[in-house]
Amino acid sequence: MKQKRANLVTLQAYLKAHNIEAFLIPRADVHQGEYVPARDERLAWVSGFTGSAGMACVTDNKAAIFVDGRYTLQADFESPDFERLDLSHEVIAKWVGKETLSYDPWLFTPSQIDALSKYGVQLQPLSLNPIDAIWTDQPDAPKDPAQLHDSLFAGKSTAEKIEEVSNTLKRDGIDATIISLPDSLNWLLNIRGNDVPYTPFAMGFAVLWAKDKCLDLFMDGVKLSPQVLSSLTGVRHHFEKMHFEDYLIDLSSQASKILVDPQTAPVKVKMILGQGQTQIVEKPDPILLLKACKNTVEVQGAHAAHLRDGVALTKFIHWLDCTAAYSSVTEIEAAEKLDSYRRVGKHFKDLSFATISGTADHGAIMHYRVSQETNKVLEKDNLYLVDSGGQYLDGTTDVTRTVIIGTPSSEHIKLYTTVLKGHIFLATARFPKGTNGHQLDALARIPLWQQGIDYAHGTGHGVGSYLSVHEGPQRIAKFGSNVPLSPGMILSNEPGYYRAGAFGIRIENLVVVIDDTRPGDEQPMYAFENLTVAPYDRRLIDPHMLSPDEIQWINFYHKHVFDKLCTHLDDETTDWLRLATLPLSV
Amino acid sequence: MKQKRANLVTLQAYLKAHNIEAFLIPRADVHQGEYVPARDERLAWVSGFTGSAGMACVTDNKAAIFVDGRYTLQADFESPDFERLDLSHEVIAKWVGKETLSYDPWLFTPSQIDALSKYGVQLQPLSLNPIDAIWTDQPDAPKDPAQLHDSLFAGKSTAEKIEEVSNTLKRDGIDATIISLPDSLNWLLNIRGNDVPYTPFAMGFAVLWAKDKCLDLFMDGVKLSPQVLSSLTGVRHHFEKMHFEDYLIDLSSQASKILVDPQTAPVKVKMILGQGQTQIVEKPDPILLLKACKNTVEVQGAHAAHLRDGVALTKFIHWLDCTAAYSSVTEIEAAEKLDSYRRVGKHFKDLSFATISGTADHGAIMHYRVSQETNKVLEKDNLYLVDSGGQYLDGTTDVTRTVIIGTPSSEHIKLYTTVLKGHIFLATARFPKGTNGHQLDALARIPLWQQGIDYAHGTGHGVGSYLSVHEGPQRIAKFGSNVPLSPGMILSNEPGYYRAGAFGIRIENLVVVIDDTRPGDEQPMYAFENLTVAPYDRRLIDPHMLSPDEIQWINFYHKHVFDKLCTHLDDETTDWLRLATLPLSV
Repeated sequence: MKQKRANLVTLQAYLKAHNIEAFLIPRADVHQGEYVPARDERLAWVSGFTGSAGMACVTDNKAAIFVDGRYTLQADFESPDFERLDLSHEVIAKWVGKETLSYDPWLFTPSQIDALSKYGVQLQPLSLNPIDAIWTDQPDAPKDPAQLHDSLFAGKSTAEKIEEVSNTLKRDGIDATIISLPDSLNWLLNIRGNDVPYTPFAMGFAVLWAKDKCLDLFMDGVKLSPQVLSSLTGVRHHFEKMHFEDYLIDLSSQASKILVDPQTAPVKVKMILGQGQTQIVEKPDPILLLKACKNTVEVQGAHAAHLRDGVALTKFIHWLDCTAAYSSVTEIEAAEKLDSYRRVGKHFKDLSFATISGTADHGAIMHYRVSQETNKVLEKDNLYLVDSGGQYLDGTTDVTRTVIIGTPSSEHIKLYTTVLKGHIFLATARFPKGTNGHQLDALARIPLWQQGIDYAHGTGHGVGSYLSVHEGPQRIAKFGSNVPLSPGMILSNEPGYYRAGAFGIRIENLVVVIDDTRPGDEQPMYAFENLTVAPYDRRLIDPHMLSPDEIQWINFYHKHVFDKLCTHLDDETTDWLRLATLPLSV
Repeated sequence: MKQKRANLVTLQAYLKAHNIEAFLIPRADVHQGEYVPARDERLAWVSGFTGSAGMACVTDNKAAIFVDGRYTLQADFESPDFERLDLSHEVIAKWVGKETLSYDPWLFTPSQIDALSKYGVQLQPLSLNPIDAIWTDQPDAPKDPAQLHDSLFAGKSTAEKIEEVSNTLKRDGIDATIISLPDSLNWLLNIRGNDVPYTPFAMGFAVLWAKDKCLDLFMDGVKLSPQVLSSLTGVRHHFEKMHFEDYLIDLSSQASKILVDPQTAPVKVKMILGQGQTQIVEKPDPILLLKACKNTVEVQGAHAAHLRDGVALTKFIHWLDCTAAYSSVTEIEAAEKLDSYRRVGKHFKDLSFATISGTADHGAIMHYRVSQETNKVLEKDNLYLVDSGGQYLDGTTDVTRTVIIGTPSSEHIKLYTTVLKGHIFLATARFPKGTNGHQLDALARIPLWQQGIDYAHGTGHGVGSYLSVHEGPQRIAKFGSNVPLSPGMILSNEPGYYRAGAFGIRIENLVVVIDDTRPGDEQPMYAFENLTVAPYDRRLIDPHMLSPDEIQWINFYHKHVFDKLCTHLDDETTDWLRLATLPLSV
């Protein structure tokens, strides 16, 4: 805490010395990802705040941290020297008032800067980030080697992918596109890396040229072995990442039509290109949609990875069922046990995020991360929520199960069944081509709304293929991404209910969008197919609250779970699973 | 048609003479409304196209018209000299290519211009609209007198409204707001007028000053009698509308923080203000939301107006039932009969839009407007769709009923019942405070989607209070307005099904958002209350397709309809309605 205060004081002295009235520090790095390398943990360095979303603003005599509802308590605890406010452009603008707000244009997107300027803020890009100037022991950039991602898993060669992206660009008369998202770059080049936790990214920039169907890559050479570099199809020139800025300056003096995604690219890219004759076309990164729609090999891989993942989770739930109600199991022990089952799976590389392992009231903390300080024994006769996933070479998983330790109360059963009804309503939706995720979000909530309750998070996020466990543009949430759900997209289906101080319920499967057009349909219809293979907790389901269709759906799913898993389980676990997946009836 | 071609040729000659490479002609006038005065029918004058949405682009040697799916046939027919393309900024940008695109900055909003420039179009605002320069017999601006709108109907004085808007502005440190929408202006000043068809607008501009709680009004004096002008609370200065531009130029030299709504204000306003020291804050017109949430008096008025409207519609359906299956009734006769019932209602001023009266295949044309050329006799054993509404001093109505003339087929019944299920699912939704219309849109579609069918229009639009029958920001559609549904908002609930060449089904009630928070609810919950009072066609309902809850809902609604209407009907119609609203049972 003391060190943080010293960092803040150093920053304020720097700002004063350089006549910087106010300086805005985002959580993001240049690639706008969920995780950032240690070297880019500028927000944590100055404020102590370690949440996954937030921003700080510092003047020579005051400091504020802006976070959303998830992180208010954490920010109060981690950043006591900062005034804590809501994370919104309007609130930031008000706090800044008449002062000029300086920022590092590599760390913000054009959309973010536009939004701030709409609120009348005077904005000033800096050429040197003040924190980089004063952070004496700033870690180095990641050096772990990049790996080739076998087309056995990727399902499509880099050459085919470059062809597709190039054709998209050429249709719009665009000469080149800036690639700044690691998901996009890693997907396109069929490479993976180890630059950030839980997500197999090799970070860098690239510029893809539509006519020549090739790209110029900016990635630190230390990460690229000669074999990998020579295997990268379509890379015309390779440069160190630090040369990207100079390259852009050169580029801006040529008259080309270049795509920049205003939602994801650094605003610095737009500023540099805008200085020259280059015509900037602001459109979403064309790779996003191509990547989101998984090809057949990727979907098959997802099914295979989910089967392995379901075996691990089912072994874990069986173990839990035999252990936790009878002896003391802590949240950390439970998470480690689950990890141990998962790690032995074929093609397993890493967890896809830090396991959420929460008993009782901890289950009600949506992004609970157990630590030695918070760790406690799974509470008897209360709910235990476990949200976890793996990174397998053939797919990324993410699954939540809520189970009872001991005997459930009638309220546990009523609320679990209500959440399950929402989960089923979404899972069974048929919808026409062109439907957006925000149109379906309410389906998972309707049963809760009828009881005057809800959950304060989205219903479904996109998931990558051995890439980020949270990927866009697909999403099932209150506000959509205006990108229709399309075959091959993988999403989560995860309604919940959280009673602060008491317990949390979340039921999450991953699903893949499939074509479901039937004879007589007047337009192409889509539906969801379950990827996740793991039982719901039968003891928490009240069949009297379910329609015959809902009961049938659960029985069918449970039969599928048993049939799929039983050959991978020992006799004892198989016997347990047989009982756990017995058909429900009223 | 010949005259239109001459107009196009004259325009092209003008463009050539003035070195204008390409000129963009919107349907809109300066106020961006659904209807425009005759003087602003520039698009129709040059292209012949009379639809409610579209844009034309003309160069010295070619011309294109951009329309959405509703208007493709109409544009082909009305504008044969124009290449017909999809109405999208991207398509317009592509068509324009490298030419400089000139436009009248009074007729476009900043958002529209931003969107076009994102696609790389070179844009050039003009100080004189070429069509105004060459249209020799351009009609005068509307001259009909404005009327005061009694606070008996408005429920709130202008002083109270100005106070509310001013407080909103002051909270954001804003000095003044530009009012360019006639809905906003007429609501704020409690006036109405007769400048456009079907919507009681007195058009003008205003600038509201938050600190002084007063406004400067720009409206043609010919429309303002001395009594009306002297009764307008809060108007500090009145100017002729033509002086608005000079006023803005003066304004721009002062350092004030002024709100401009980029979605609705003319981009010219932003351009003028941007030339001076004025700080422009781009936010939605703050009046929109205040106006959308009707006060108690307005909601009571809506109920009263809908009762009268329901009496008229029910008399009409009864007449139709006794007549159309046994003798020849044309679409025009039917519409006129309905109008005649409606016109005698207390406080009736006008229809709220041109009645859609469509038999058989005409019912499948979503915006069908019957004419002498298309008029036909209501087809026996087929569906008849009638979508109509009235402007009453105490409320605006909009209702659609689909009825069978003769005997329905099993397909009519199956599809009508399916649409009705969607209508009921939406009508019975409970949802938490903060819910947006786009979240609820799918509820009305789910029963159709299950059968592989859908409808190609939104589910619900906002409705004004003796104002526009289509108002924002509230909306229930695939893409929402990001404005939560709030108590007092009036919306339509109008799912449908259309089989081209055969028949159309639409069932539309207006509803008002009400608080529905009950003991035990964990957050404020809202629901819809029906305003419309008119029977559904019982002969088209298959109870076997309905759940017990759905049957109960219909029976309850029909009892309500009968109880409300019977005292306003003669004995014969009452007897008919009693049968038409008999409880359903399986």
